[in-house]
Amino acid sequence: MDNRCVVLAARPQGSPREQDFRVETRTVPKLEADQMLCENLYISLDAGFRNWMDEGSGDNVLPAMPLNEPVMGLTLSRVLESKNAGFKSGDLLMARFAWEEYTVTHAGDFISPIGVAEYPLNYYLGVLGDTGLSAYFGLMDFGQIKPGETVLVSAAAGAVGSIAGQIAKMLGARTVGISSGTQKCQRLIAELGYDGAVDRTAPDLGQAISAACPEGVDIYFDNVGGPLLEAVLDRINPQARILLCGSVAAYNATEPLPGPKNLFQLTTKQAHMHGFMTHLNLPRYDEARAELAGWIAAGKLVVHEHRLQGIDSVGKAFCDLFAGVNFGKTIVALKP
Amino acid sequence: MDNRCVVLAARPQGSPREQDFRVETRTVPKLEADQMLCENLYISLDAGFRNWMDEGSGDNVLPAMPLNEPVMGLTLSRVLESKNAGFKSGDLLMARFAWEEYTVTHAGDFISPIGVAEYPLNYYLGVLGDTGLSAYFGLMDFGQIKPGETVLVSAAAGAVGSIAGQIAKMLGARTVGISSGTQKCQRLIAELGYDGAVDRTAPDLGQAISAACPEGVDIYFDNVGGPLLEAVLDRINPQARILLCGSVAAYNATEPLPGPKNLFQLTTKQAHMHGFMTHLNLPRYDEARAELAGWIAAGKLVVHEHRLQGIDSVGKAFCDLFAGVNFGKTIVALKP
Repeated sequence: MDNRCVVLAARPQGSPREQDFRVETRTVPKLEADQMLCENLYISLDAGFRNWMDEGSGDNVLPAMPLNEPVMGLTLSRVLESKNAGFKSGDLLMARFAWEEYTVTHAGDFISPIGVAEYPLNYYLGVLGDTGLSAYFGLMDFGQIKPGETVLVSAAAGAVGSIAGQIAKMLGARTVGISSGTQKCQRLIAELGYDGAVDRTAPDLGQAISAACPEGVDIYFDNVGGPLLEAVLDRINPQARILLCGSVAAYNATEPLPGPKNLFQLTTKQAHMHGFMTHLNLPRYDEARAELAGWIAAGKLVVHEHRLQGIDSVGKAFCDLFAGVNFGKTIVALKP
Repeated sequence: MDNRCVVLAARPQGSPREQDFRVETRTVPKLEADQMLCENLYISLDAGFRNWMDEGSGDNVLPAMPLNEPVMGLTLSRVLESKNAGFKSGDLLMARFAWEEYTVTHAGDFISPIGVAEYPLNYYLGVLGDTGLSAYFGLMDFGQIKPGETVLVSAAAGAVGSIAGQIAKMLGARTVGISSGTQKCQRLIAELGYDGAVDRTAPDLGQAISAACPEGVDIYFDNVGGPLLEAVLDRINPQARILLCGSVAAYNATEPLPGPKNLFQLTTKQAHMHGFMTHLNLPRYDEARAELAGWIAAGKLVVHEHRLQGIDSVGKAFCDLFAGVNFGKTIVALKP
């Protein structure tokens, strides 16, 4: 059986370009003992995976992606055939599989089984997937939001940010989002309920943050890192919490970006910086999904999606993330 | 009555030099309503005060120190005369007073009264003062040390580090200290009970840390900041805690130092960075002092002091801190 895959054709220099990816047709191998064959229905595009596209970028989370091999990502998949005792045909999975139509695995990969799919399948990669859950676990575990506090979110229209801003608002915070351009900033307020917005392209970013956060920043949900983090650190309140979810600014840097010069603000403000990795909370996914789904059902949480169609558009969809084209979760549906 | 004071003669460029300070003789003013006159018995030297010697360095903690005025610091003082209802003659205070023989105050300064002095008075500026308490509150509130974890301490022979290393050891950690030079590193092990030492002047600092911490770093008690923090971040374990107590590397920098390029290690390791300011814990000082004093009495906590004599040596004592001359707490006794 043919398997169309997106391979890493070249290591991106800076922001990824479409020609860094190439679609190849391979053959699905025969199943060996303990293996299963999965059909990938949706592919999730997540900026964080840019991290492992550089030479020598392997770390304790993932190895560096090899050239000319299918690109790693997150998928929503259905088991077609299983020789693995833990899975049976028809099972739905949210999994860390490659950008390809079919995946054969020993089930040793990162897999989050979805029992009965109570919600639209695409939600399991977005609001009920790693991105929505990143917003949820970050704020719930480390945000300690008190009503009236100011929560600032970077990449506020992105897959994680769009959910984080809405959750923070629900928890009683005043929310301010950072995004690029007037139009996206207007949409933050109109469509995602942010109380204020900061245009990242403003000539004086620090002043723009101060204007939008006149009482300072209590919680910074950071998806971006880089110079923006430095500008925010100068404006944190005592006991502030900085939630380090992502660092898009660094993923594309050809040289490591300098860190914030003012990290000592954490000391003088007695503030806290928390890194977190959503996949480490796998046992809590079901509970978190139930709460998020409850909010959607109650109309408190609105889901935005940037959807493309077909395996040929996966590379473009990934590049869109870094071009700021998306509003909400970027996803590719592989089936019509 | 004459009052010999140490004034800020020049703003230090980089490390402070003795000529940045000048002893002047002033006159103690008459007491006004609500004021009290205090005799300063000991002056504590703390690198952190370097922070407020630069032009425009005022922040939410302290204003920038004015030129040609007495330098701010921490003192152990006795009330000689009081028109303030809260204090009476003979009261002992740990206070944020200037480097001078006598201080007249409205009691609006930072003052920690010492009821009955149960311990040697000099202890109230060191192990039972802000430095010992920094080690105590940092580790107790944010360290969450589990037995067998590796605790790395920078400026390990300093006033804070020398206490932090011993407390961490008492709590069951394997302790590693960072200090400059072979001799100080040997003393860390022989006199402060560290299990290992890292010479900060080693040609490959990262490798030296790896060698001394073969199982990685679980807790980093950081008094230094700067490039050392970056080298440590590359070696932290999952769930590590970075305790940001001080940033000596930054205090003397004429340009802001770049921050760590690898802050994203906090995310991938799900690690936490906690800033803390000891003086915010004032209501808990008595309780903490009792526990520290208990450890001293039981022979579990050894106190080292670098002591100088007389108001004329205060400037030199401060410069000694940055030259790494001290082993333990640096203090000047103003009375013979």
